[in-house]
Amino acid sequence: MQIAILGTSAVGPALGNALRAAGHQVTIGTRDPDQTKARERWAGVDLPLAAYQDIDAELFINATSGTGSLPALQAVGDALSGKVVIDISNPLDFSHGYPPSLFVSNTDSLAERLQRELPEARLVKMFNTMANEVMVNPGGIGDDSTVFVAGNDPGARQAAAALAADLGWTDVFDLGDLTAARGLEMYLPLWVRMFGQIGRPEFNIKVVR
Amino acid sequence: MQIAILGTSAVGPALGNALRAAGHQVTIGTRDPDQTKARERWAGVDLPLAAYQDIDAELFINATSGTGSLPALQAVGDALSGKVVIDISNPLDFSHGYPPSLFVSNTDSLAERLQRELPEARLVKMFNTMANEVMVNPGGIGDDSTVFVAGNDPGARQAAAALAADLGWTDVFDLGDLTAARGLEMYLPLWVRMFGQIGRPEFNIKVVR
Repeated sequence: MQIAILGTSAVGPALGNALRAAGHQVTIGTRDPDQTKARERWAGVDLPLAAYQDIDAELFINATSGTGSLPALQAVGDALSGKVVIDISNPLDFSHGYPPSLFVSNTDSLAERLQRELPEARLVKMFNTMANEVMVNPGGIGDDSTVFVAGNDPGARQAAAALAADLGWTDVFDLGDLTAARGLEMYLPLWVRMFGQIGRPEFNIKVVR
Repeated sequence: MQIAILGTSAVGPALGNALRAAGHQVTIGTRDPDQTKARERWAGVDLPLAAYQDIDAELFINATSGTGSLPALQAVGDALSGKVVIDISNPLDFSHGYPPSLFVSNTDSLAERLQRELPEARLVKMFNTMANEVMVNPGGIGDDSTVFVAGNDPGARQAAAALAADLGWTDVFDLGDLTAARGLEMYLPLWVRMFGQIGRPEFNIKVVR
């Protein structure tokens, strides 16, 4: 499948390499490809880059920051219409330091905001509850664990779950419509706290049921 | 140990029975013992009752509702001074229907509010992330899972962890000071959503690390 991943932080390239290894064709979207290529941390990355406004794909993954998500998706624009858009972002607000708070929560979520602004996209919240090290190597933490999907379109949730399966995920928990993104994003403060106590990002939760 | 459990909903009696079976002496605190005894759902409960203002114990457990927690603890008053107070409550706001939102979150938590109002109590957030069926029977869901503790007093966290061990808990995750209660309470919307999808309360998360 042709997949476009928006975002050039650690998450985008990590997912891109793993999805390419799983047989997909991956392009990384960025605001300014020349600027991205000039960055030191891009030196070891071997994935094609395209500007947001030039990118197209069968499936999109938003791996930009919470504050950068809406501008990035709006820059991609009409190419998102009818497409599955997997949203990994979290509404983290670092303006008051660490640990971050959330800039939207409780009665709304970033994923719902994005879906409202992009009504033609088929948004699915997935992978926001773990570090990229776990996304691409679910077996690497020593036991099975859980990845969640939430979105208003059942077919889009299935497509996202299939992509997770390509990466080795065996427990994909379907939470139903996109209002579940509130809970998935509000889990982040607990994740951040656990990260501080564990001291490394290679952990995840398993829903025992 | 002499334990007082505040609250007469399902959680208080369930925990009371389990802690008594583990060898502790348990009293249930309530606003009006005569009114509680007259309730139909109290008929099968065989635990001593006392009014909040008359209760004392070596360790307290707050199993009242989120909105009822501060009045209940204030009614107990000076007896809480220096004592470990395990706070199971969640700041659930049902005023806009189901699913509930949280009436405090993100940059504060109910547990921190309670600790500020009762500075002499040694508050520990524990057990708020699961149903009482799991609290008292951690082995009953088919696999090990995790219970979290958070509180400003390390000795109080250890006392709470020891109580969890009495109930059969093998994975007690110490999250440090009480600001971690934000994450533990903000986990509730995800719990509520999972509850809806699973259709029964016998589930919990295991932190795979």
